[in-house]
Amino acid sequence: MSTGNFVAQLKAAWSRNDTLVCVGLDPELEKFPPQLAGQPSPIFQFNRAIIDATADLVCAYKPQFAHYAAYEAEDQLERTIEYIHQHHPGIPVILDAKRGDVGNTAQRYAIEAFERYGADAVTVNPYLGTDSLEPFLSYADRGVIVLCRTSNPGAQDLQDLESGGRKLYEVIAELAATRWNSRGNCALVVGATYPRELAQVRTLAGDMPFLVPGVGAQGADVQAVVTNGQTLNGDGLMVSSSRAILYAASDETWVEAARTATRKLRDQINQHRKIKPV
Amino acid sequence: MSTGNFVAQLKAAWSRNDTLVCVGLDPELEKFPPQLAGQPSPIFQFNRAIIDATADLVCAYKPQFAHYAAYEAEDQLERTIEYIHQHHPGIPVILDAKRGDVGNTAQRYAIEAFERYGADAVTVNPYLGTDSLEPFLSYADRGVIVLCRTSNPGAQDLQDLESGGRKLYEVIAELAATRWNSRGNCALVVGATYPRELAQVRTLAGDMPFLVPGVGAQGADVQAVVTNGQTLNGDGLMVSSSRAILYAASDETWVEAARTATRKLRDQINQHRKIKPV
Repeated sequence: MSTGNFVAQLKAAWSRNDTLVCVGLDPELEKFPPQLAGQPSPIFQFNRAIIDATADLVCAYKPQFAHYAAYEAEDQLERTIEYIHQHHPGIPVILDAKRGDVGNTAQRYAIEAFERYGADAVTVNPYLGTDSLEPFLSYADRGVIVLCRTSNPGAQDLQDLESGGRKLYEVIAELAATRWNSRGNCALVVGATYPRELAQVRTLAGDMPFLVPGVGAQGADVQAVVTNGQTLNGDGLMVSSSRAILYAASDETWVEAARTATRKLRDQINQHRKIKPV
Repeated sequence: MSTGNFVAQLKAAWSRNDTLVCVGLDPELEKFPPQLAGQPSPIFQFNRAIIDATADLVCAYKPQFAHYAAYEAEDQLERTIEYIHQHHPGIPVILDAKRGDVGNTAQRYAIEAFERYGADAVTVNPYLGTDSLEPFLSYADRGVIVLCRTSNPGAQDLQDLESGGRKLYEVIAELAATRWNSRGNCALVVGATYPRELAQVRTLAGDMPFLVPGVGAQGADVQAVVTNGQTLNGDGLMVSSSRAILYAASDETWVEAARTATRKLRDQINQHRKIKPV
């Protein structure tokens, strides 16, 4: 179960660990180190090793739902989230599930994310509008991270359509800032691969936290992400990396390699952050 | 596992059962008949009774994912789909999960829906664009049912935004007709509660099948749905009803009441369908 207010935990972790890195926990069994083959609950064991090796370097963990569901591994997802809460309290867990449905059903998805899995935050898809987000937002101590401008090439198909002088992702950013964040628990997904759009969304969304996937395997420019996405305080970002950290090495050095990759990303990000006011 | 091509099965079921009704299998334990209380696998038992009572009256079944996930009942979802395929072959099963994610992750969701659960079709959210749909569409024998104009009040927040003289849901309908349906396995979700929009989408999408939620508990007008949504052949629709059928009675008559409600909906729909060419 969640151990506190998502946004407060996130801010405390940014500061305590001096980091904007979020590690994505996306298990891919075919990339696992050979030592885990044939072991019980290999996904949980893999995650636990990654978590213990990186917990002082991250501001959040982000398990991606599909990577568990495809393996029928909901139990290992539950155990992973529970493990983080028990052994590394204060690091919020984002369930990356991109849920979106009508009110009655959205309520069930909110129960799944926040009560069953005990996630501190969940990613959601805004296509169905305000009433589809409200069941999530009404959990005031949990974070609701709304897809705004995603990191994939096809993002432009809909998200860049212009309406009334605004692109669709800008409309989302405005709705988030003016309506959906009334409880202070809303955040946005803005892909690292489009730094110009990241700057535009920052202008519209004030100091709302952004979950920023796309560095690492997707190849975005870290400097551009930090420069364009950070708030006046030099934070506001959860820069998410998964494969480049989890599978940094495939031999027996994998845990150490994951820690090194996380530290490098943290340092690379911090190099471009604004100096905090003393 | 799926037993054949989704669209072909759907057309055959429309014709064989002379019906456009799709029954939504959305378990809500608090509404279950008292006889099921304390039984093992109550959701599966409930679904099995509903399925056996309605299989000759429907063109598809549609379990809604969140209603299983909130109860940690993935196993009963698996058993339900397997039961339909084994005992009522030829009735396609739509996994209503509204998935949407970047390519690598969308691939995992496709594995979940089509391989793990063996669904014949899945609902997806188009917000992330073409490359997020392709991993689903590449399963050419499975249906990919894209959210277009949903049945909830908040649908208008984004879906009605105008861009280049087209509303967003019309852009989706056009993309589906011109790009996403290249393998003939694409369909659209169009809510019953907005019959004018249903007619517009029909104009844009040719004879593509529409999944139409919103009759029954959500109160849409059946005549308007059929008149505005049907194809020239008098079909093209999967008119979905869940609560009004599943919970038609809460006493020991619940199975019979579900059958009666399904038959009534079928007949009400058929009354307004075009007479088929002889």
